[in-house]
Amino acid sequence: METTKEKIVKKSAELFNTYGYHACSLSHIMEATGLKKGGIYNHFKNKDEIAIEAFNYNYDRVRARFKERLGRVNTPTEKLVAVIDAFVSFIDDPIVQGGGCPIFNTAMDATNTHPMLKEKAKAGIEGLKKYVEWKLMEGIEAGEFSDRVEVKKVASLMVATLEGAIVMSRVEDNNDCLMMASDYLKEYLFKNIIKH
Amino acid sequence: METTKEKIVKKSAELFNTYGYHACSLSHIMEATGLKKGGIYNHFKNKDEIAIEAFNYNYDRVRARFKERLGRVNTPTEKLVAVIDAFVSFIDDPIVQGGGCPIFNTAMDATNTHPMLKEKAKAGIEGLKKYVEWKLMEGIEAGEFSDRVEVKKVASLMVATLEGAIVMSRVEDNNDCLMMASDYLKEYLFKNIIKH
Repeated sequence: METTKEKIVKKSAELFNTYGYHACSLSHIMEATGLKKGGIYNHFKNKDEIAIEAFNYNYDRVRARFKERLGRVNTPTEKLVAVIDAFVSFIDDPIVQGGGCPIFNTAMDATNTHPMLKEKAKAGIEGLKKYVEWKLMEGIEAGEFSDRVEVKKVASLMVATLEGAIVMSRVEDNNDCLMMASDYLKEYLFKNIIKH
Repeated sequence: METTKEKIVKKSAELFNTYGYHACSLSHIMEATGLKKGGIYNHFKNKDEIAIEAFNYNYDRVRARFKERLGRVNTPTEKLVAVIDAFVSFIDDPIVQGGGCPIFNTAMDATNTHPMLKEKAKAGIEGLKKYVEWKLMEGIEAGEFSDRVEVKKVASLMVATLEGAIVMSRVEDNNDCLMMASDYLKEYLFKNIIKH
């Protein structure tokens, strides 16, 4: 059974991802949960505390999506293809109401306005980059990838391209840009990273 | 001399790019302009009307930045390099307070919440992609670029990569990702687009 606190976090996670931190007011949360102000502040000190918990909730969902996709495959090549496919799944099967990548959405939303949330989004993006770096290094060590691969550069650009393409696809109301990014990155992987 | 209306648009353009549409309230605009509510609504029907004018103002500044950079060079290759360099300049020499690319910021901010602003951001991104497509086609026709270049794909991915990298650089508080994207795209241009 979902506790009241869990319900508040879940609903707020949807609202924050849809509207952003500032545009999501306590009234929105009250309306979505059917709770009164006191019923919410019984569980949280303030909106900031809800926002942090909501980010953690969305972050856990992003992690779960990657874990589920990555758990199906084994080799470094398959793992990197699965990372790309996990991003593509963000459009057809959204992680959370509001769509897109909740970590990147928070990064955009919080950069100028909420240092604490921004730091959390920064750490989330860093975690994803580190995972890609780690798989690239594993592939190099296993002799599956060329040892000339510039690990940090490839990881950073892969994440930037996929995150940028998700936003483009959302604003263009179609999957085209994200599918092109996916095709391109897979081709890059097979042409420039995998040893032949 | 700047009119009161121009002053409101300019200040609002900075505030909307910094905080987003919803988080920027009339009080923010009143404080930034030193005007009372009546002094603002004397010139605009509502906040929406201000937001549209503010977007146009930011969009014109983005266009001016590209125009200035692109006006310095002539060939299709130089034009595409100038597009990349114009994006890089968004970090060191921000277009408008709040930083990043105001068109992409609006796209993110408005996708779920403001259909009219979203359409404007969509048209802005489309315009930029079209410019890159046009330069690619010019280069192909002039025999400067390979005729195997997939014009729409390259334009879309170039814009997605640069926009994604700007956000990454902002959240990471350094230029690394954007500089890597710039280096990578220039290398791609010279290796895969220019005819040898």
